Order: sequence, then structure tokens, then C-alpha cells
Amino acid sequence: MDEFSLIGAYFKRAISPSKTPQIDVGVGDDAAVFRVADGHQCVVSSDLLIEGRHFFADVAPFTLGHKSLAVNLSDLAAMGAQPLGFTLSIGLPRVDTAWLGEFSKGLFALADAFDCPLIGGDTTRSDNIVINITIFGQVPTGQAIFRNGAQVGDDVWVTGSLGDAAYALNLMQNMPAHSDLEKVRARLEMPTPRVALGCALREAGLARSMLDVSDGLAGDLLHILRASNVSARMECDALPLSSVLSQLPVGQAWQYAVAGGDDYELCFTAPASTEVRAALFDLAQKFTIPITRVGTITPMNQVAQIVWHSARAPEVAQQLARSTGFNHFASR
Amino acid sequence: MDEFSLIGAYFKRAISPSKTPQIDVGVGDDAAVFRVADGHQCVVSSDLLIEGRHFFADVAPFTLGHKSLAVNLSDLAAMGAQPLGFTLSIGLPRVDTAWLGEFSKGLFALADAFDCPLIGGDTTRSDNIVINITIFGQVPTGQAIFRNGAQVGDDVWVTGSLGDAAYALNLMQNMPAHSDLEKVRARLEMPTPRVALGCALREAGLARSMLDVSDGLAGDLLHILRASNVSARMECDALPLSSVLSQLPVGQAWQYAVAGGDDYELCFTAPASTEVRAALFDLAQKFTIPITRVGTITPMNQVAQIVWHSARAPEVAQQLARSTGFNHFASR
Repeated sequence: MDEFSLIGAYFKRAISPSKTPQIDVGVGDDAAVFRVADGHQCVVSSDLLIEGRHFFADVAPFTLGHKSLAVNLSDLAAMGAQPLGFTLSIGLPRVDTAWLGEFSKGLFALADAFDCPLIGGDTTRSDNIVINITIFGQVPTGQAIFRNGAQVGDDVWVTGSLGDAAYALNLMQNMPAHSDLEKVRARLEMPTPRVALGCALREAGLARSMLDVSDGLAGDLLHILRASNVSARMECDALPLSSVLSQLPVGQAWQYAVAGGDDYELCFTAPASTEVRAALFDLAQKFTIPITRVGTITPMNQVAQIVWHSARAPEVAQQLARSTGFNHFASR
Repeated sequence: MDEFSLIGAYFKRAISPSKTPQIDVGVGDDAAVFRVADGHQCVVSSDLLIEGRHFFADVAPFTLGHKSLAVNLSDLAAMGAQPLGFTLSIGLPRVDTAWLGEFSKGLFALADAFDCPLIGGDTTRSDNIVINITIFGQVPTGQAIFRNGAQVGDDVWVTGSLGDAAYALNLMQNMPAHSDLEKVRARLEMPTPRVALGCALREAGLARSMLDVSDGLAGDLLHILRASNVSARMECDALPLSSVLSQLPVGQAWQYAVAGGDDYELCFTAPASTEVRAALFDLAQKFTIPITRVGTITPMNQVAQIVWHSARAPEVAQQLARSTGFNHFASR
């Protein structure tokens, strides 16, 4: 099977003018062609996933297809952007039709759920599996939510719960027979991008800064703090944990929640008023995604930093701060 | 050096509002943001280059940076689209600062020449060097030049000369001490994307179909023929050859010219009128890029096919047809 047969068999699908009216030309020419709505900007993000680094060779291809697109949709969500389409570049050691069938099924299931079609890309041979997706979306001009808008006094919020994916990764690598694995595995392999909530936050004008949590809350929040020239005080006791993580020793659970990764939840800051908080909880209810207030933006003292606080287990917060390896950690 | 330091040191550059006014946000947030001009469509292409497949590990990093972007610019050229910006995903086995410095120099030299800035991407570790560039451009709505517009009677044209890159590759692999290598090496490693001419052809409304020649003229022209439901009669004697290739035995030279690859010249079809031909030569002169009429679009008989003709060496054309491995080849 050559490159063109492979694309035709697994990756070339008709573009639906009714479902994705802004896509004019998809897979098959030198380039794809789409339209950005009047009064909108184009939003673009790209993620490179490499076998052995970002996933194991034996990962179920359906979930890999899902996750490859999910991490990119999550980037659009973090801007408050509506997805339009994506390109897929894929390097494969061999043409494994069963693998390709499952991979493309997982990919297109998520693409269809977000009306975000595959419009182009590249295929080639490579020693390891290599996947690069570049995603395109749109946002009303001037309304994208960046990392640099956090203001002193803002609440810090996160969606969903944190740490399950990092816990799953640890179990897979070290305790694959542990009964918790099946409870948290989907959080690692099949993350749910928070696109609708991200767009709703942008429409409502409630979030001042936002990003998606992919490398762990501690590291990712720092991006907001540095871009906004502020610091933060975070409440470990408030960290949203799943029922599975809640049963772990608190030190372990917090470690996964703040220094793990692969959460693909949104972290955003918003004014600390009663009205804004109520409006945010209304949105969360509308989209049935829990949101949790986990901290406060504070003035910056020379460098942006995070102070982790806990009334429940102050010594654990302190220990956590030291063990995460982030030299900005502190507990006081 | 972590991911963010690496991006900051080699890949994060200020966006110039005067030179690239449509880029609103570049490297540094969850996604990049740009505007497509009113009345224009967005054009997107993506290419994945993998060490050992598309380039050798010891390729000069400056030329690799150049070529990685050049092949993508060439795809935009083939649509008649004007470049706006690109994302770069790069996987590297190690942080080699000398390599990164040269790679980014080659990349940005070409990016600057086309006012096509780097606006985002991803970096990660990988066993081999992996490079994926996704490029964005714009074209006035409805004016992109596709592969499916060729009409019976059209002239088939190519820009520049063909086969030098394939000859260079063969010399590098088999005769690295050959004195021709330095004469053709740049055609392989530093291709010149025909962006200005591609856009001019679109503006002038002269080309009915177009693509860029990346896999060899024989294979690439077939894409136009199949998409347009036509065939072609090609004149081997007319194939544009460099002075270096002209000195090879004609069978070898034609083999490189039609079955080689990495040419990154444009192949297009246009009406066979005296006026159009004159207008095309005027454009070629304006952009100082030779163009050559190499064949004619003919009616399709069941399947799209290419007939290669030569008055000068008919037996060579016939042999060439057999040896290229394209089963659609024939000579009569």
C-alpha cells in the first residue's frame, strides 16, 4: 500500500458542507482551503507526539487517535476558540491495517463530536510512530483569552479534577495489576477537551487569563503568572480530586494533582466577585463540568511564584513544595 | 536546557507588525492568532521530514532549516497563495546548541525572505530528528489553483529545470567525490520555492491547474491528470535540463528529470493560445524564472495516462517509460 492508497483508505473523508461549511477543500490537493468567519481571527496550535516519549508502542490505537486530537482541541479550548479543522502528519514503521483502522476510528470519533474535520497533512515511513496534529479554530477578533491577563485579587479556577492521568501513568509503569488502574486509565488515554466551556467562558467575558493544564498545574500556572507579572497563593485543601485520588495519602494525591500532567483541564483566573463566581458556577452547571476555586492571584515580588497553603496538612504542603522540584515552591 | 529555554533561545522572535501585520499572536501562548484578509480564504499545508528518510543525519543544519520551510512554501506557491506564517514541531535527540543555531538561521533566513514568520509549534525529545512544518497562507476567495482544472488541449508547463536534485542525491549516495556534486547539491538542499510566480499565475488567471513537483514530474503530473480526468502527451526533447544534466547521457538525464524528485518547481497547465503563451513568457521574464512548454493535455481513454514522446531518441523514451516503474508509461 503506497502513501496515496493509505490516505485514501484511512484518512480521506468527504467534507460535509452542512456540518463544516467553512471548509472549502480538504485532503487531496497541494493544500487545504478554508474560510475564517468575518470579524474573526484564526487560532492555530500544534502538538508533536512521539512513540516512547508521549505514548507506549502498545497503546490501543483507538485511544491514541482520540488523544492526538484531544490535546490539540484542548489548546483551542484554552483560547476560547471554536475548532474548524486539523491537519495530521503521521510517520509509521509499517502499514498495519488493523492499527490504522482503529487509530482513524478514534481520531474521527472525536473529530465528528466537535465538527472538526481532517483537512490535510502528510504520511511517511519512520522507525517509531510520530504524530503531529495542527489544529485551526476561530475566535471573534480581540476576544481570545491569553495567559497574560491575570490581575491581583483574581480567583484561580480549575475545571474537572486533577492528577488522575498522572496516577494512571504511574500505575501503568510500576503497578499494572493495581485495581485503581482501570478507574483512572481513561483520564490518561481519553482526555475530554473542555471546548464548549472554554468558548462559553470567552463569550461570557468572565475569564481574564486561561490555559490548559498539560504539564501539571504547578508548572502551567507559572506560565500565567509570568506572563501576567503576578504570583499566586494556592490552597492545597481545595484541589479537586477524583474519588480514586481522594483515597490516596494526601501527599501522594496532591503530588499527582499539582506536579503530574496530562490533565487537559482548564485553569483560568476571574474577578473575585460574588456575581462572577455565581455566573461561573451557572456555566459549570450548564456544561456539567465541575469548577473549583483553588487559589488567589497575589502581587509579584521580583519573580512570579506560587505559595502552596494547607490548613489541613501544612507539613505535607511544605514537603510537596520541596519534592516537586519546582524551586518556586514554598509553604508558609 | 528545558523546552521553554530552547524555544526562547532559538525559535521565539518578535513579530513585526509592519512586515507581518496579519499575525496578532506568535509563539508563547496555547495557540497563535492571525487574521485572514477580508475576501480571502486560508490555505494550509503540512510536511513531515524524518531523519534517515528525508535527509541524512549529517546534513548541514542551515540547509535543513531552509529546506524544511521551502517545501511548505512550495505547496502554497502551487495554490497561488501568499504565505502568512507557519508552525514548527521539532523532535531532537539532544540539545545541540551549534546545530540549533544553524538550523534556526537557515529557517529564519527563508522565513524573512517571504515575510512568513514562525508563530507556534512544539518541541520534544526523540531518537531521530523529526520536523513538521504546517504553513498558512491566503488566497482571494475562489481563486486558488487546484489540480482538477486541466482541460484537453492545454499546454503543460514547468518552471526552472528538472532532475538536478535527484542527480545530486544519487551522487551523494554513490559518488560523493564526483565533481558534479557541488554544482547540483544546492538544488537538492536549498530549493527555491516559486511563490511569487505562483501568485502571479493566479493573479493573471492564466493557469487552469497547478501543483509543485516534489516526487518527480511523472508521478506528480498524474495527480493533475487523474483529478482532471485527462491524459497527457509529453515531449522528452523539451524537458528543461540544467547545463550539468545536459551533459549526461540523455537516458540518464530524462530519468532524473521525470522520475527523480525534490525539484520543487511548478507544473501547470494553461490554454494553448498564442496570447496566453506570450503572457506566460512575460511573467517568466518578470520573475526571471524560465518556463518551458513540455506537453499537451489529451483526452482520457479509461484511465489517465502519460505518453512520453521523443523525436530525438525514441528508443530512449521507450526505455525510460519501462524503467521508471510507472505502469502508465508508454511511448508511441
